[in-house]
Amino acid sequence: MMRPAYTIGLDYGTNSVRTVIVDTANGREIATAVWGYAHGTQGVILSRDPNLARQHPRDYVTGAEITLKEALAQARRNVPGFRPDQVIGIGVDTTGSTPIPVDAAGQPLAFQKAFAHDPAAMAWLWKDHTGVAEAAEITALARKLRPQYLAKCGGTYSSDWFFSKILHCLRTSPRVFKAAYTWVECADWVPAMLTGTEAPDRLTVGVCAAGHKAMYNDEWGGYPDAKFLAKLDPQLGALRARLRPKACAIDRAVGGLTGAWAKRTGLPAGIPVAVGAFDAHLGGVGSGIAPGVLVKIIGTSTCDMMVAPLSRKLPDIPGLCGIVNGSILPGYYGLEAGQSAVGDIFNWFVNYLQPLGKAGTHEALSAAAAKLAPGESGLLALDWNNGNRTVLVDQRLTGLLVGQTLYTTPAEIYRALIEATAFGALTIINRFEEYGVKVEQIVNCGGIAEKNPLVMQIYADVTGRPIRISRSAQTCALGAAIAGAVVAGKKAGGHDTFAAAQKAMTGLKPVVFKPNPKAHAVYRQLYALYRQLHDAFGTPQGDGALYTVMKELIRIRDAARKA
Amino acid sequence: MMRPAYTIGLDYGTNSVRTVIVDTANGREIATAVWGYAHGTQGVILSRDPNLARQHPRDYVTGAEITLKEALAQARRNVPGFRPDQVIGIGVDTTGSTPIPVDAAGQPLAFQKAFAHDPAAMAWLWKDHTGVAEAAEITALARKLRPQYLAKCGGTYSSDWFFSKILHCLRTSPRVFKAAYTWVECADWVPAMLTGTEAPDRLTVGVCAAGHKAMYNDEWGGYPDAKFLAKLDPQLGALRARLRPKACAIDRAVGGLTGAWAKRTGLPAGIPVAVGAFDAHLGGVGSGIAPGVLVKIIGTSTCDMMVAPLSRKLPDIPGLCGIVNGSILPGYYGLEAGQSAVGDIFNWFVNYLQPLGKAGTHEALSAAAAKLAPGESGLLALDWNNGNRTVLVDQRLTGLLVGQTLYTTPAEIYRALIEATAFGALTIINRFEEYGVKVEQIVNCGGIAEKNPLVMQIYADVTGRPIRISRSAQTCALGAAIAGAVVAGKKAGGHDTFAAAQKAMTGLKPVVFKPNPKAHAVYRQLYALYRQLHDAFGTPQGDGALYTVMKELIRIRDAARKA
Repeated sequence: MMRPAYTIGLDYGTNSVRTVIVDTANGREIATAVWGYAHGTQGVILSRDPNLARQHPRDYVTGAEITLKEALAQARRNVPGFRPDQVIGIGVDTTGSTPIPVDAAGQPLAFQKAFAHDPAAMAWLWKDHTGVAEAAEITALARKLRPQYLAKCGGTYSSDWFFSKILHCLRTSPRVFKAAYTWVECADWVPAMLTGTEAPDRLTVGVCAAGHKAMYNDEWGGYPDAKFLAKLDPQLGALRARLRPKACAIDRAVGGLTGAWAKRTGLPAGIPVAVGAFDAHLGGVGSGIAPGVLVKIIGTSTCDMMVAPLSRKLPDIPGLCGIVNGSILPGYYGLEAGQSAVGDIFNWFVNYLQPLGKAGTHEALSAAAAKLAPGESGLLALDWNNGNRTVLVDQRLTGLLVGQTLYTTPAEIYRALIEATAFGALTIINRFEEYGVKVEQIVNCGGIAEKNPLVMQIYADVTGRPIRISRSAQTCALGAAIAGAVVAGKKAGGHDTFAAAQKAMTGLKPVVFKPNPKAHAVYRQLYALYRQLHDAFGTPQGDGALYTVMKELIRIRDAARKA
Repeated sequence: MMRPAYTIGLDYGTNSVRTVIVDTANGREIATAVWGYAHGTQGVILSRDPNLARQHPRDYVTGAEITLKEALAQARRNVPGFRPDQVIGIGVDTTGSTPIPVDAAGQPLAFQKAFAHDPAAMAWLWKDHTGVAEAAEITALARKLRPQYLAKCGGTYSSDWFFSKILHCLRTSPRVFKAAYTWVECADWVPAMLTGTEAPDRLTVGVCAAGHKAMYNDEWGGYPDAKFLAKLDPQLGALRARLRPKACAIDRAVGGLTGAWAKRTGLPAGIPVAVGAFDAHLGGVGSGIAPGVLVKIIGTSTCDMMVAPLSRKLPDIPGLCGIVNGSILPGYYGLEAGQSAVGDIFNWFVNYLQPLGKAGTHEALSAAAAKLAPGESGLLALDWNNGNRTVLVDQRLTGLLVGQTLYTTPAEIYRALIEATAFGALTIINRFEEYGVKVEQIVNCGGIAEKNPLVMQIYADVTGRPIRISRSAQTCALGAAIAGAVVAGKKAGGHDTFAAAQKAMTGLKPVVFKPNPKAHAVYRQLYALYRQLHDAFGTPQGDGALYTVMKELIRIRDAARKA
């Protein structure tokens, strides 16, 4: 019998951090520990500005220690004979883009007394939208001078990304900007912290964060050039020299676990820690992503992940969030798409409109909606309550519902909202395929995939494709543990390739949601109408008359709120 | 001191009949009695077919006796010295088109034992939609052979109107059709009943019902010609000879109150009973309608009434429900427009979506909506949940809401729905004015005008015009009493002209809802967007791509419901 070997996935979310210990032979999750961040509101530091969202980097350190120790204790209880020295590697996934200003030693500024309470010195969480103006500035400049930068990230640089946040800090908190030697993504800082490689000249950066959020690409020599950044601000141009020259994929270890961390946790010193990546990307890995497999992580919003072989000449795909060499699996392009809101739309309906008291829960509405036949409500919705990430890349789009009568019920609307998100999902699938990336299998994971079979059945009926669900409920942490297994290698009890690791450690639930041909036939008709509305309100097609409607409403709204 | 004189308005509604006794000198309503019809559900006979809605004509007789007696008793209590012989005339208003099949003596077939329980032999209530197929047939034939018929009624003959109902009876209840000597509108039958003039050769028909609902027009010799009707069915052609040759306005008496009715009620025998008309039209009279005055009766739906001098050459106005010489005031064209749903849309939101428990009442939502500034929700709606009567004349249109975010509240939607009905109202005003019928004053009446000042203020802000409210809460009954005063004449204590009667008997409430210029400026922008949606979804303009969306959804819905 082989000696059992385990790897750890450390998964940094928005509200908490999770450690999962996984058996490298079969993917069994033998222990899970979760710790809610101590700072802010459910781990997020907020302010009067609704766009601001920060995290305190101290929570990253505390959270690793607490959950690693707790998970190891749990593993001992769960698995007779388990010993911490059977842990052979660690992988890390985090939210992002979540950049942290650090000092010359690579330590977060927020660790200094002078900056401990300054939100600008903390981690700028993925959903911090304070850099809207700076994003527009970067987009405009790139459109003029470096269109190639935008071609890889869907045509628009987002307010939520690396340089928008840094430039906003420069503009609004110059003291912090000046005190920062450089900026490090959370996904890079945590592995560095565990391995003592935080020093800016020793730091390893992952291509997932750099490529998707910071316009990094080997084709043009890494990060955007200093001249370009200097046009935004000379100080930003100067920062370029303090960013790393080369970004790596997750098959590389950034170093070995330090003696100090080994002592704090009981883990063996020196075990390799893989290059970090974003939660969604490692969620793809943990769901068994491979060429032809679309992994959808469905929660409040979705991330839609695919990989394509490097050997293929892949065209730029308009409207895609990013195409980055090695961002998901080494040796493949990582393709990222997504819907700005899915579960959030259902939550809006239940929590803001609060229909019908007890009959207005997700469970009750799903049960009532499940009794309806496709098309019978006469309703059709657009899933744009939070804008449209893919394929329109336009935050200034809003929701739409059409077909209401005097008898329209909440369950009918609830179902129409589910269908709208399914039509949005189909639009993304179609876009992949229009550009030659064939979708042969769909694997869903995340809270909604786990909990709501009606949503999954509607997705199958709308797309006309079978929908499978990832076996693990923690695919992001599992993906991180897989990276840990690969950097440990087969000899140590891990795996030499991601393909081998995924084969051993990932799987699907037995349930398959198969498309009902009759339902699909109705949804084909409804989707044609969805596309009419999509194109009329979301693109300047034809006379463009309706393309301006949502934006005009936002303009009028903003003016009214200021008045 | 003048001897006091009173007239009676008898107002037949959908659920009940009302008698109001009015002082001819000042319009004071000295007594009001209401009786809910005995038959059916709240006075309406229903069936499994949701389109079917009938009334039992027996209720018309019973209701007159009960409410006349009760009102007189009340008047005696309220006014010292009141004597029934001070009542000098009666006017009648009813719903319509509400045709009744009658025998050769002019008595409703439903009075015969054999037909007492047959809905086809009862009164076919205004909102009976069973004649959809027949309406389409009549419209198609008229479009081909008699386009002039349609030009006066907005371009489409409705399922709810006289000939659609009769033809549907002929097709589906031939026994009733054969047993009927002729068909009489409720508005004509009640005055005939009170005066003993029910016999088909003595019957007086009002031009309001005949002109608006039965394509009657003196220009082409009254009702549609027998040849045209015979093309629909030879038996319908044969009926033409048993319809009256000439229709009259409400300044004419159909006769004097019979001795039998005088005995049953205590009223003086022989007092004149005016030609009957529809509730909305006499509501216009009771609200002081005159050239330049738009009277809006706002309830579950609206009726929008105007008059224009006969001396003017009035063009056909596309999308208007009807232009009929004398249908509101003698000597004027009566123009009728309307919105298919107003209060019904607000009721839908409150009763079907049931948002927020106690915070979801009309009162609470209005209070919360009143705190919002125009435009600040970013929402825009179309008021088509029940189709669009004016100006699109299309029942196959549905509601639309656009601009939702993840934070949109019920109060914001409620306000957007109110605004949508205001935009619909403005579209009607614009249509009147585009065809030269200037709207100089707006007078609203009806439940919503009485009860919801927020709605009235939004109407003022959207239209940019002051909104006034009719003094009487019972303008339909008051209008009928005014007709009673005119047929009685000045000598008897009434009035010789409608102008004189309206001057004495109608008035406005002191409150005036004045447009707020800042709000109006925002609403001008929103109305431009409303018109974009209105034209895109409601007309085949441009490439017509969106014109088909609502109808396609209905087609898919109908197919899904049948499957």
